[in-house]
Amino acid sequence: MSNCIEQYIEEGKQTIERVLKNMIDGNAIPKYLYESMTYSLFAGGKRLRPILMFASYEAYGHNINKVYKTAAALEMIHTYSLIHDDLPAMDDDDYRRGKLTNHKHFDEATAILAGDALLTKSFEIIASDDQLTNDEKVFIIQQLANASGPRGMVGGQILDIEGETNSLNLHQLEKVHELKTGKLITFAIVSGAYLAKASEQTIHHLQEFAQYLGLIFQVQDDILDIEGDPEKLGKPVGSDADNQKSTYPNLLGIDGAKQQKEQYVKKANNALVLAKANNSYLMDLLYYFSERDY
Amino acid sequence: MSNCIEQYIEEGKQTIERVLKNMIDGNAIPKYLYESMTYSLFAGGKRLRPILMFASYEAYGHNINKVYKTAAALEMIHTYSLIHDDLPAMDDDDYRRGKLTNHKHFDEATAILAGDALLTKSFEIIASDDQLTNDEKVFIIQQLANASGPRGMVGGQILDIEGETNSLNLHQLEKVHELKTGKLITFAIVSGAYLAKASEQTIHHLQEFAQYLGLIFQVQDDILDIEGDPEKLGKPVGSDADNQKSTYPNLLGIDGAKQQKEQYVKKANNALVLAKANNSYLMDLLYYFSERDY
Repeated sequence: MSNCIEQYIEEGKQTIERVLKNMIDGNAIPKYLYESMTYSLFAGGKRLRPILMFASYEAYGHNINKVYKTAAALEMIHTYSLIHDDLPAMDDDDYRRGKLTNHKHFDEATAILAGDALLTKSFEIIASDDQLTNDEKVFIIQQLANASGPRGMVGGQILDIEGETNSLNLHQLEKVHELKTGKLITFAIVSGAYLAKASEQTIHHLQEFAQYLGLIFQVQDDILDIEGDPEKLGKPVGSDADNQKSTYPNLLGIDGAKQQKEQYVKKANNALVLAKANNSYLMDLLYYFSERDY
Repeated sequence: MSNCIEQYIEEGKQTIERVLKNMIDGNAIPKYLYESMTYSLFAGGKRLRPILMFASYEAYGHNINKVYKTAAALEMIHTYSLIHDDLPAMDDDDYRRGKLTNHKHFDEATAILAGDALLTKSFEIIASDDQLTNDEKVFIIQQLANASGPRGMVGGQILDIEGETNSLNLHQLEKVHELKTGKLITFAIVSGAYLAKASEQTIHHLQEFAQYLGLIFQVQDDILDIEGDPEKLGKPVGSDADNQKSTYPNLLGIDGAKQQKEQYVKKANNALVLAKANNSYLMDLLYYFSERDY
């Protein structure tokens, strides 16, 4: 893997951190709530979704700061979903990325409200973005709400919880991931291209690319839970096997999971060629994320 | 009190129930999540906020179905806030309006996600409302996100929780209620008038009216917790006194609370006269809600 893509990722991370810091102004927000929101927002996330949005925009457009606030809003939604996911009633996690989870550092009520606040704030940020026309804002808000709501991410969370007690087949497992992580990844890529004024046909191919990329991300997560280095991952491994969760390796075996991933990579690659983005950072990110060890 | 206002309220309730039913389509939403969302959405709420929005619109405009979807979105946000508020980590309530709370009927994880889903869905509804121009949608989304986010309702929830363990003075108590309930009530009234193309000056007076109306609603809640009929209220009374909460009667005595309410009513009335809405249903609603026994 070239150093170039690692540098691109690192620069993207720094950019989105800076944008988020400018965006999330504590003025008129009760102090404790603000602390809880920013605790999780700056807890060392991979910033995958904003970086994908940047790469998608740059494949077709030339004014990257047009997408900054949309990317920040998206990262806030991702962060809220992690805070709620970690709650005792959900995954009951004490640590995330080596830090105490929000409800462990603060308390459950504050964590619930910090999540609610980040979700709500994300729509305000887009509605107030002076880089976008009102037509663009409405399109983006519609897409983001759809991707993160009951037909998207939140729907996926429910199915994921159901999948913990029922065993799923490959098709059902793909459906869970398509909603739970795929929809927001698709939003990142589609909204980047939309704001760069890519054609409908191009966006159609990117949608297909994004769906496979989401699945690749998930299968790699599952593989890392077996073969990964807890140090690099910042979390213990082996938890999926322990709790009999529906995962790719539990369903297909570890080799079957790797073969499945390679099929997804091939299909994602093809879709990207059709979207005429084969020389973009999206292609590098595809291979980088499919091989990631963290 | 005239029967007329009671009929207006009843018709408004029926209208918003019908709009909500049309709005919340279970297609592509996981079944269990959909059941949980609709369980709380149709649990017999007073529909105060939509009714205020209707009255505010009708004081200045003639095409009431223009506000229906905005009113539905607002009611969804109110409903999500009740679901999260009732959670064990928050108020830990088992019943609301005589029915099991969402997390008691379903489970905590589902209740958290149903709240998240309703919140997210509300922005999608506005962004997709074919009765509004894109300029109107952006204004409405901006106002609604602001009113319900960390500088609004969610901020008020945090302050309310803090107020349960610290005693607040009158000014601090007003601040909690201004954020926790006042901001959404203000949104209802302001957005109704905005969509009816009322002038900026009028909206300014309505904002003042709405702030007092929110406080009136709260002080009456506090009074009913002492003097109300549990049967009519659908919940036990006396809980505020038990847990030493900061309330108007705990702060001012029951007579002081009633005097305070009368002052608010007078100021709200004046603001409504300035907004040239003295012959509107808003005026009737002011007196109706300040005397309500449920």
